[in-house]
Amino acid sequence: MGEYLGTGKKKHGSRLRIIPLGGQELIGMNITVFEYEDSIIVVDCGLAFPDDAMLGIDLVIPDITYLKENVEKVAAFIITHGHEDHIGALPYVLKEVNAPIFATRLTMGLIEHRLQEHDLMDTTTRKVMKFGEAIECKHFSVEFIKTNHSIVDAAALAIHTPVGVIVHTGDFKVDYTPVYGDAIDLQRLAELGRKGVLALMCDSTNAGLPGFTQSERTVGRTFDQIFEEHKDTRILIATFASNVDRVQQIINTAEKYNRKVVIEGRSMVNTIEIATKLNCLQIADNILIDIDQLKDYPDERTVIITTGSQGESMAALSRMAGNAHRRISIGPNDTIIFSSHPVPGNEKAVTNVINDLLRKGADVIFQDVHVSGHACQEEIKLIYTVLTPRFAIPIHGEYKHLIAQTKVLRQIGFEKENIFVLQSGDVLELTTEEAWCDEKVTAGTVFVDGLGVGDVGNTVLRDRRILSEDGIIIVTAVMDEMDGRVLIGPDIVTRGFVYVRESDALLDEIRDVVREIMQDCEEKSISDWNRINVRIREKLSEFVWVKTKRRPMILPIFMNL
Amino acid sequence: MGEYLGTGKKKHGSRLRIIPLGGQELIGMNITVFEYEDSIIVVDCGLAFPDDAMLGIDLVIPDITYLKENVEKVAAFIITHGHEDHIGALPYVLKEVNAPIFATRLTMGLIEHRLQEHDLMDTTTRKVMKFGEAIECKHFSVEFIKTNHSIVDAAALAIHTPVGVIVHTGDFKVDYTPVYGDAIDLQRLAELGRKGVLALMCDSTNAGLPGFTQSERTVGRTFDQIFEEHKDTRILIATFASNVDRVQQIINTAEKYNRKVVIEGRSMVNTIEIATKLNCLQIADNILIDIDQLKDYPDERTVIITTGSQGESMAALSRMAGNAHRRISIGPNDTIIFSSHPVPGNEKAVTNVINDLLRKGADVIFQDVHVSGHACQEEIKLIYTVLTPRFAIPIHGEYKHLIAQTKVLRQIGFEKENIFVLQSGDVLELTTEEAWCDEKVTAGTVFVDGLGVGDVGNTVLRDRRILSEDGIIIVTAVMDEMDGRVLIGPDIVTRGFVYVRESDALLDEIRDVVREIMQDCEEKSISDWNRINVRIREKLSEFVWVKTKRRPMILPIFMNL
Repeated sequence: MGEYLGTGKKKHGSRLRIIPLGGQELIGMNITVFEYEDSIIVVDCGLAFPDDAMLGIDLVIPDITYLKENVEKVAAFIITHGHEDHIGALPYVLKEVNAPIFATRLTMGLIEHRLQEHDLMDTTTRKVMKFGEAIECKHFSVEFIKTNHSIVDAAALAIHTPVGVIVHTGDFKVDYTPVYGDAIDLQRLAELGRKGVLALMCDSTNAGLPGFTQSERTVGRTFDQIFEEHKDTRILIATFASNVDRVQQIINTAEKYNRKVVIEGRSMVNTIEIATKLNCLQIADNILIDIDQLKDYPDERTVIITTGSQGESMAALSRMAGNAHRRISIGPNDTIIFSSHPVPGNEKAVTNVINDLLRKGADVIFQDVHVSGHACQEEIKLIYTVLTPRFAIPIHGEYKHLIAQTKVLRQIGFEKENIFVLQSGDVLELTTEEAWCDEKVTAGTVFVDGLGVGDVGNTVLRDRRILSEDGIIIVTAVMDEMDGRVLIGPDIVTRGFVYVRESDALLDEIRDVVREIMQDCEEKSISDWNRINVRIREKLSEFVWVKTKRRPMILPIFMNL
Repeated sequence: MGEYLGTGKKKHGSRLRIIPLGGQELIGMNITVFEYEDSIIVVDCGLAFPDDAMLGIDLVIPDITYLKENVEKVAAFIITHGHEDHIGALPYVLKEVNAPIFATRLTMGLIEHRLQEHDLMDTTTRKVMKFGEAIECKHFSVEFIKTNHSIVDAAALAIHTPVGVIVHTGDFKVDYTPVYGDAIDLQRLAELGRKGVLALMCDSTNAGLPGFTQSERTVGRTFDQIFEEHKDTRILIATFASNVDRVQQIINTAEKYNRKVVIEGRSMVNTIEIATKLNCLQIADNILIDIDQLKDYPDERTVIITTGSQGESMAALSRMAGNAHRRISIGPNDTIIFSSHPVPGNEKAVTNVINDLLRKGADVIFQDVHVSGHACQEEIKLIYTVLTPRFAIPIHGEYKHLIAQTKVLRQIGFEKENIFVLQSGDVLELTTEEAWCDEKVTAGTVFVDGLGVGDVGNTVLRDRRILSEDGIIIVTAVMDEMDGRVLIGPDIVTRGFVYVRESDALLDEIRDVVREIMQDCEEKSISDWNRINVRIREKLSEFVWVKTKRRPMILPIFMNL
């Protein structure tokens, strides 16, 4: 990493500070601070989904200690597009750091939906931005530039600062034939490049993949082909709720093949409603029908667009696969299309749903009905060639993706010392000429578990991990406070350790071990509860390990009478 | 599924019964029973690795109730190759059903290693088989036929039975230029086909993939190229311990580029030792060095072959990535090659290790340095075309893979009613002319957790899941046996629920809720412990849900004095 952290040169006087507070080590939780003297703007404010080790956690949001410490400086939240990993933490962050939000139309529509859920509409200033428009924020002027992505209205930002222009691509791809709206605004980017760009912060998600990402429109042709080949069955299509263009293409194909369309799954219904209201979707009259009207049409005249493309256990498609959907049951007359790739970590869950659907006799198509929303290597080269920035700051991706972008940059002749691979909390400082990184601020993750924000930390997760692997043995006893005599117990209760009904002998032995330890303590006149507690945990742990090769949590609870 | 279960025709008289006891729904745990009158042979006896829902489970083995019920019939275990999913359950099964084992050389070497670990060598009859040889087992004659796979000495079986010949491919691919030994014995397979094959049981793992799997030898050329391009760094290569051919090719390339080789990781060392002893590996003198000799050679003169290609947390490479390896530390002068694909479910773990290695400045190559050991669609067509069986029984794979094979078969004109997609426990019965499936025997999974085999079932797993997500709240109290008066408590102890030090108020409230319930019970003269217990669990559960949106396990423990 050290090789991508610059030369440590420093200058006196004012400088721009760029601080990613998240998003640099994992997919998601994108949030970046731009600071100049007394002003801060924040680009994106996303959440991440928990990984397997974060047991029971619902969401992960960034630690915004740095923003709270500089709360009076914060002038704006500027959001590049409406995906959860760019907007999802806003409701949590706004409660602590309130500032106006700037975003394009659909992005703002999705943000407002979240704000309504958290009852934050009245307290939040919002401004919808058009492409080509800029907002002025003290030292900053931020211009919204059209890009392409797997959601409508995605923007890159040209952040004009006193030390130069920083271009932030957001998540993007280059799509010459987008489904909705224009191709990425290469002319404006080129103009910026010609005038001089100090640094480019470019999406790294697909930097490991050669070539060009295909146009979203190619998926539409695939839909046409599949509909043509499956004229006799009902068709169900699972895709990302937020991919409005994908839904548009499904609706187009449905219309062409004279099928009615049902939208199913809460997040899908919400997004389509918002997108339709904002004119991001063009739906002819009488195409959409209610799920209850399905029975009025033969199978071969209907399409169901549904959530669940990631195998999420509570999503509509998963419930259909598991016979837990109240209105739709799957059978041999269904063709089910996964118009998606599994997000890393979801592969098994997706496969389980596919297997369940196949077992019901359905035909399932899960390959080659999706294109990515992120730039591959040739697109990254294109964007660098158009912008010719002095410095490169790869963003959006796991560490391996950031490093993959540095390899691409080296191929097009970018100098190593002008590339900065930042970790969350790193402070990159820039003047008109130089850039360096030798400071770190607080950054990290905060867990959301149910209504609790930050009340589950590593101690609780460690306990959950131990409990999840080998369960718990609880040892209870009541002692006479005066003489330490055992009045009741010791008794043994276990959960998640062994099947109790068939383990009487083992539990008896465990009780005997505890009894011996307690007697031994009594004989040695050890009456300090802590010491007895520690001895029981140590000895019992060892005994259980030898007997079972398991390491349950051991919890003695002693009461004094 | 129904459409692939035959027509239900039946004949009187003796018939062959084919019963997969595992391996038909998931990857792994392959075991199939062949039964004719008073004799049974068992093909393969593998284990599966637990999925994410099997919390704390180490291994999964098949439920062999059917074999135990017919123990006197079992004449042989016949093993196709030495992978864990084909041999791993043998030590557990042999303890209950002892019969001689037949396998080829390396397969037997790996089996014997397992038997030694379980102290079963003295009680187990074993016979090493050569390709072309057959064993006679009462009604069966089983011939071992050379195939290719990602392990040396893999065999297909031609099982000659009174009703006809069944060919079982085992795991296989078609490799015209294998690294060790001959290509798959297409001549013998063709000869069997010409004489007449009743049924083919064919590997489905890659049935979803078009084309031909590439030859193992192509990976050797990739190694040459990478070594050529990384002449100045140390090279580490992670691959499957059992892929002896892969190790052979790494050693060949190392020799060519004048590097010494270290073998690291327990399972890798074991396998290489066994393979070398059995002459499955050709290693020139002075190529291998001990890990402690690494310091005597410059980085660019060494290669380390290591376990950990699947991101397994305890494997050598993961320990290196996590600074937990005692002898090897990773730095910018390391090139690390993943010569593997992540097994489904391991993607995240592999990526985490890659990110950690990159953070240490190492160069990591993780794409295109691997070929599969399984037949793709064109190879499946080849094998069917050579054998022209009357019936097809897709094996080895998840349900989606089995279905993918049926699609391939339909393409080459195989009739639907002659294809049988079996689930574990299904009994397929065959005469010389017909096949049908209308019986089911006990089949399923048995969990191995530490030393316990089968003592963790769904109840324990359900508890572990609840504990893992939201922890446990334990309510203790001591009551006077005579009048039900509360003498001590109620006290509240939690683990894995909230960070206790910052949740005093919540825990106080929980205690108050319990107190109220107990008072209410007292006033209503409810003294039945079970009823009080249930009320506390219900009310407290509801209270905690409203307050936190979490559902911890609630465990009241009351003691009487």
